Amino acid sequence: MTYEILTENTVVDYIKSRPALKNRFDFDGDFSVSEVGDGNLNLVFIVKQGENSAVVKQALPYLRAVGESWPLTRERVRYETQALQEQNKAAPGLVPEVYDFDNEMSTLTMEYLGEHEIMRKPMVARKRFPKFADHISTFLARSLFFTSDLYMVAEEKKRLMAKFTNEKLRKLQEDFVYTNPYMDSEENNWNPLVDAEVQAVRQNAELKMAIAEMKDAYMNHTEALIHADLHTGSIMLNPEDTRVIDPEFAFFGPMGYDIGAVLQNLVLNYLSHYGHTPDKTERESYQAYVLETVRDIWKGFAQKFDALWAENNRGELVPEKYWDFPGGQEAFAEFRKRYIRRVLQDTAGHGGVKFLRRMMGIVSVWDISSIEDPERRAIAERAAIRIGSRWVLERKSVTSIDDLINIVLEETKDIEV
Amino acid sequence: MTYEILTENTVVDYIKSRPALKNRFDFDGDFSVSEVGDGNLNLVFIVKQGENSAVVKQALPYLRAVGESWPLTRERVRYETQALQEQNKAAPGLVPEVYDFDNEMSTLTMEYLGEHEIMRKPMVARKRFPKFADHISTFLARSLFFTSDLYMVAEEKKRLMAKFTNEKLRKLQEDFVYTNPYMDSEENNWNPLVDAEVQAVRQNAELKMAIAEMKDAYMNHTEALIHADLHTGSIMLNPEDTRVIDPEFAFFGPMGYDIGAVLQNLVLNYLSHYGHTPDKTERESYQAYVLETVRDIWKGFAQKFDALWAENNRGELVPEKYWDFPGGQEAFAEFRKRYIRRVLQDTAGHGGVKFLRRMMGIVSVWDISSIEDPERRAIAERAAIRIGSRWVLERKSVTSIDDLINIVLEETKDIEV
Repeated sequence: MTYEILTENTVVDYIKSRPALKNRFDFDGDFSVSEVGDGNLNLVFIVKQGENSAVVKQALPYLRAVGESWPLTRERVRYETQALQEQNKAAPGLVPEVYDFDNEMSTLTMEYLGEHEIMRKPMVARKRFPKFADHISTFLARSLFFTSDLYMVAEEKKRLMAKFTNEKLRKLQEDFVYTNPYMDSEENNWNPLVDAEVQAVRQNAELKMAIAEMKDAYMNHTEALIHADLHTGSIMLNPEDTRVIDPEFAFFGPMGYDIGAVLQNLVLNYLSHYGHTPDKTERESYQAYVLETVRDIWKGFAQKFDALWAENNRGELVPEKYWDFPGGQEAFAEFRKRYIRRVLQDTAGHGGVKFLRRMMGIVSVWDISSIEDPERRAIAERAAIRIGSRWVLERKSVTSIDDLINIVLEETKDIEV
Repeated sequence: MTYEILTENTVVDYIKSRPALKNRFDFDGDFSVSEVGDGNLNLVFIVKQGENSAVVKQALPYLRAVGESWPLTRERVRYETQALQEQNKAAPGLVPEVYDFDNEMSTLTMEYLGEHEIMRKPMVARKRFPKFADHISTFLARSLFFTSDLYMVAEEKKRLMAKFTNEKLRKLQEDFVYTNPYMDSEENNWNPLVDAEVQAVRQNAELKMAIAEMKDAYMNHTEALIHADLHTGSIMLNPEDTRVIDPEFAFFGPMGYDIGAVLQNLVLNYLSHYGHTPDKTERESYQAYVLETVRDIWKGFAQKFDALWAENNRGELVPEKYWDFPGGQEAFAEFRKRYIRRVLQDTAGHGGVKFLRRMMGIVSVWDISSIEDPERRAIAERAAIRIGSRWVLERKSVTSIDDLINIVLEETKDIEV
């Protein structure tokens, strides 16, 4: 089938043309269809038939808002499919199940998550998800460990890496996270009330060298298959279940980028409540919950990652036999500890850059941008710039998650709203 | 043409079957042919016709010494060809020119270097090559710079990387450089007189963690297209000209691996003269020349790499505009300086590991192994183990090439032969 854009009217016939979907639906029965893509990039159809359901996601060949003048690679659906498949193997139950992939039509058919909501808005409404820290730290530990050299056989990892070239979407992140926000670039966009702070970042030699160093690591450290866009808009959940979606940016990169994305998005949410939650008691209570979640995610990640490594050391980096000498098991434990500490330092560095880019680049996050009063928004934004700068600049001396949390506390302790 | 092993009798017909070679030779004329491969891995034919000549190199599908029981990938000729082509673009005149490549026959036809000799043996005979430091530092600076994100456009680099998966040959280096020598593995092989020192390395927890960290960097830091086997046996030269050959291990890896290979091979040669050169005056004079060459190579590399970057900053890592702020040019210069210092630290780490592997792994170097008296050999070997251990362990505090040279001087100052 050559590529054509699906509509609510054609999607049922499309489904019936796919052998892989035959056991999901009665092809002779009735279907209900609705298109729900918020999107510019993709069409998203929810298809239902009695108890059965699926999401049919199709990549558009251009940005819908801009029209055909901004072409995009439809390849991204292939990367999303491949990533979901690998993540499902590594962290079963924490991403949507893939039912079908159609390269010509750039269409991915997968599990419909009808009982879940995107995490970002409920966190602005101070909703709590007590199991989230456990779920997401499992996702991070398992998806990163099982696609790294700590678990994979060397040749397999190189062959899998070759399937994730993903050069076009990587280039977007390289530019929009690590480069353009810190220099003159027309798509940049910031609150005029924080102009002084934004310009100070753009002229801070030490900070810009550090950002460039993190960019180098982002481009060149192929540690594991990372999601590479793991903000709270890529997480769907309910009190019992958590799923990570939309991994089309996936490639082999630094583990700290994914962990940093999660933690930094939570801290931006923490800051957004200076705008969204005027009641001090309510605000402080929710902010404390958010920072506790940050702590629990890192601690959960570190503990699970270490345990996976100790128990499944079949990868190439350091075979069991390598530690076979008096004191070798202690050395292996110490090596794991140092490795994980280095991942924390990378988390600080990449997470810190991502604070900055949200304050002065192409797009903020809804938690912050939805604060209507620019003065109030500026309070959160200034704190984000201070915290992000410190996470980046102080990354090499970070030894525990409390170091990062303390920076958040120090940079917000004088805020009065 | 399906794969068949060439012989001195069939190679001329083979040449005549290749359109790309038509302008190199008169297909109706007479040829002279001789097979000169020392090798286990490849056949190497020198083909001459009057003024014209070429080398025809064919990969064998197995290790010749072991027979058909040890199959090898013939893909390595493709990697060698691709690497030579990229190196010729980046560092013209410093590698053999490629005339033809034939994937089915696993055959590469290239420039014959009739006026050059392999560098290793003449250095044992204390021959000097006054232009070598300049040539090899140019090769290193140019081949590494022009294939890095400092010069390449991001998408191009990712696509080029995808052509250098090279998973089988990389696995050999991962095992034989960074893993097996430091644990029980049957192919390991060492002088019984240094058994105590070898066992001490294998039980040194701090050193083994450091080696594992270097292995992680080797496997995962995709900085530039590296040769990945750049010892003095991969260098052909004469007083006027230098060529780097045999890049079949090439992949995108850490720059410090190639630089470390060159410097460490020179230092092993330095040490070998405790065995080869009994006359103290002659020995010290040549050793001083070798260390001066080490210094000149690093200094030449650093200066040329920095100048290339300053003058050709069209890559993705840090665009010109990124440094467009008061003090930005100074920040860019400082960023380059720190980047190059980090390459020096990697050079120490990877080079240090390579000292160790040559003393206790599958294969030494001829400079050392050709010292017939095991007592004399042990003197060089013990020093190599001490120097290698210190280069690895002290790498993070290295700030100049003199730090590495001083380690060599300190660890050899008490040697009496």
